Amino acid sequence: MTTTLDTLLNHVSVRALTPQALSSEQIHQLVTAAQAAPTASFQQSYSIIGVTDPDLRQQIAGYAGGQRFVATGGTLFIFCADLHRIQYLAQEQGVDLTETLTGIDATLAGTVDATLAAQNMAIAAESMELGTCYSGGIRDGIVDIAPLLDIPENVFPVLGLVIGYPQSRNALKPRLPFAAVYHENRYQSSESAILHHYDDQTNQYYAQRTGKTSPTTRRWSHTAIDSFRQHPRTFMQKFLNDHGLAKH
Amino acid sequence: MTTTLDTLLNHVSVRALTPQALSSEQIHQLVTAAQAAPTASFQQSYSIIGVTDPDLRQQIAGYAGGQRFVATGGTLFIFCADLHRIQYLAQEQGVDLTETLTGIDATLAGTVDATLAAQNMAIAAESMELGTCYSGGIRDGIVDIAPLLDIPENVFPVLGLVIGYPQSRNALKPRLPFAAVYHENRYQSSESAILHHYDDQTNQYYAQRTGKTSPTTRRWSHTAIDSFRQHPRTFMQKFLNDHGLAKH
Repeated sequence: MTTTLDTLLNHVSVRALTPQALSSEQIHQLVTAAQAAPTASFQQSYSIIGVTDPDLRQQIAGYAGGQRFVATGGTLFIFCADLHRIQYLAQEQGVDLTETLTGIDATLAGTVDATLAAQNMAIAAESMELGTCYSGGIRDGIVDIAPLLDIPENVFPVLGLVIGYPQSRNALKPRLPFAAVYHENRYQSSESAILHHYDDQTNQYYAQRTGKTSPTTRRWSHTAIDSFRQHPRTFMQKFLNDHGLAKH
Repeated sequence: MTTTLDTLLNHVSVRALTPQALSSEQIHQLVTAAQAAPTASFQQSYSIIGVTDPDLRQQIAGYAGGQRFVATGGTLFIFCADLHRIQYLAQEQGVDLTETLTGIDATLAGTVDATLAAQNMAIAAESMELGTCYSGGIRDGIVDIAPLLDIPENVFPVLGLVIGYPQSRNALKPRLPFAAVYHENRYQSSESAILHHYDDQTNQYYAQRTGKTSPTTRRWSHTAIDSFRQHPRTFMQKFLNDHGLAKH
C-alpha cells in the first residue's frame, strides 16, 4: 500500500481541534495543493476564502447553525464556485457568455471545480497530520454569509473546510458496502438486505463511540434521512438566481 | 514535503494510456479509496459505475464528443450523484423526502459527494503510478448516456474518470496565480494585470508543449472562454428535471 493510500483510507473528520490557527506558510502550501487539482476543461472556476478574522468567523458559524468546529479551532476555508472571473474576462474580450454562465450546468461545473480543489487541500492537510472537517452547513446560512464575504455576482459558496491541529480522533466510520456503491456497466438498485445489514453495522459503531448501547436510533439510514429532513435548504434556488446562477 | 503532497503537486491529466484495463483487484482498491472520502452529513449520496464492456464504452464516448481517451485505454468510471438510494430507504420507512430531494441543493450535495469520491480515487490511482483523466464531456452526451447506464430517477452522472497505465505525460501546467484564487476574509476581484500575466504564461506553456510558437491563441482565458462557449449544455435543466432533480 502506498503512503498516500494509507492517508486516504485512514480519513476521519476531526471536529476537536486546538485553537491554533494555521500559519501563512501552511495556508500557502495548502492552497497550492488545492490548485494542483484538475479542473473542468482547465476553467479553474473556483475561489478559496481563508477566514482569519475571528469575529467574522464567529458570525459565519452563527449563521451556519452554530457548530463549534466552524466557530473556532484551526483555520476555516470557504470554497466557492466562481464564474465571476471568467465572466469578467469574457466581457473584456467582448464575448457574451451570460447565457451559458447563468445556466445550471455552469453552476455544477463550478461546484465540481471547488470540490476537487477542496478535497486536494483536505488530503494535503491530512498528510501533514492536520485534522480536517467539512461544513456543508455553511449553505444553511448562505443568504447571510454571502454578503459577509462580499460574494459577487456569479460566485457561490459551496463548502466550508476547517483545518487545524487535532485534539482527538474518532474511530474510522464504516462506509456503505462496496456492492451498494459500485455498479458494473449498468446501475443496479441496492438490495434491501445489504442496506439493512449496514444499518446494523453503523448502529454498533455509534454505540461503541458513545459508550451507549442504544437500540436503533443511530442507524445510518435514520441519520441520513434526518439530515435531509432537517436541512431542506429550500432557499437555494432563489439564492443562486439572485447571484446570476442556475437560472435555466 | 510529504509523499502525498508530492503526488498532489505533480498531478497532470494523462490522456495517453495503454489499452490495458484495470484488474478487479485494482478496481476494488480504488473504489475503497473513493469510499473513504468524506461525504456531506455522511449521506454518501453517490454511486460509481465502472465501464468494463468495451462496446458500451465506445457508445458512451461517441455521445461524449468522441474524445479518444474516453473511448479506449485503462478503465472508465462514471461518478453519479445518487439520491435514489436514500429516497428508497425513506419510502421504506414511510418518510416523504420528495420535496427535499427534488430541490437544487440536494443535487448540489450529491454532486459534491460524487466529486469528493472521484478525487479520492484519482489521487489513489496517481499514488499507484497510474494515469488519470477526467471527462466532464460525459455531460455533453448525458441525455443519451443515462439510458445506456440504466440511470434511474434521482441519479445524475456528474463526471467520467479514466484510469490506466500511462504511455506519456505532459509537463505540469501552470495554475492561476495564488492571488487570483485565494482571498483573505473577503472576496476580492482579481486585478486585470495578474490575469493577463497568467495568460502569457499559459501561452508559453502550450508553445513549449506543442513545439509551435503561436501568438496568443492558447492563452488560458481564450481556451476557458471557448470551452464554455462550445459546451453550453442548455439541456441540463430539462435532463435533471426529467430525472426528478433540481426542480425548485
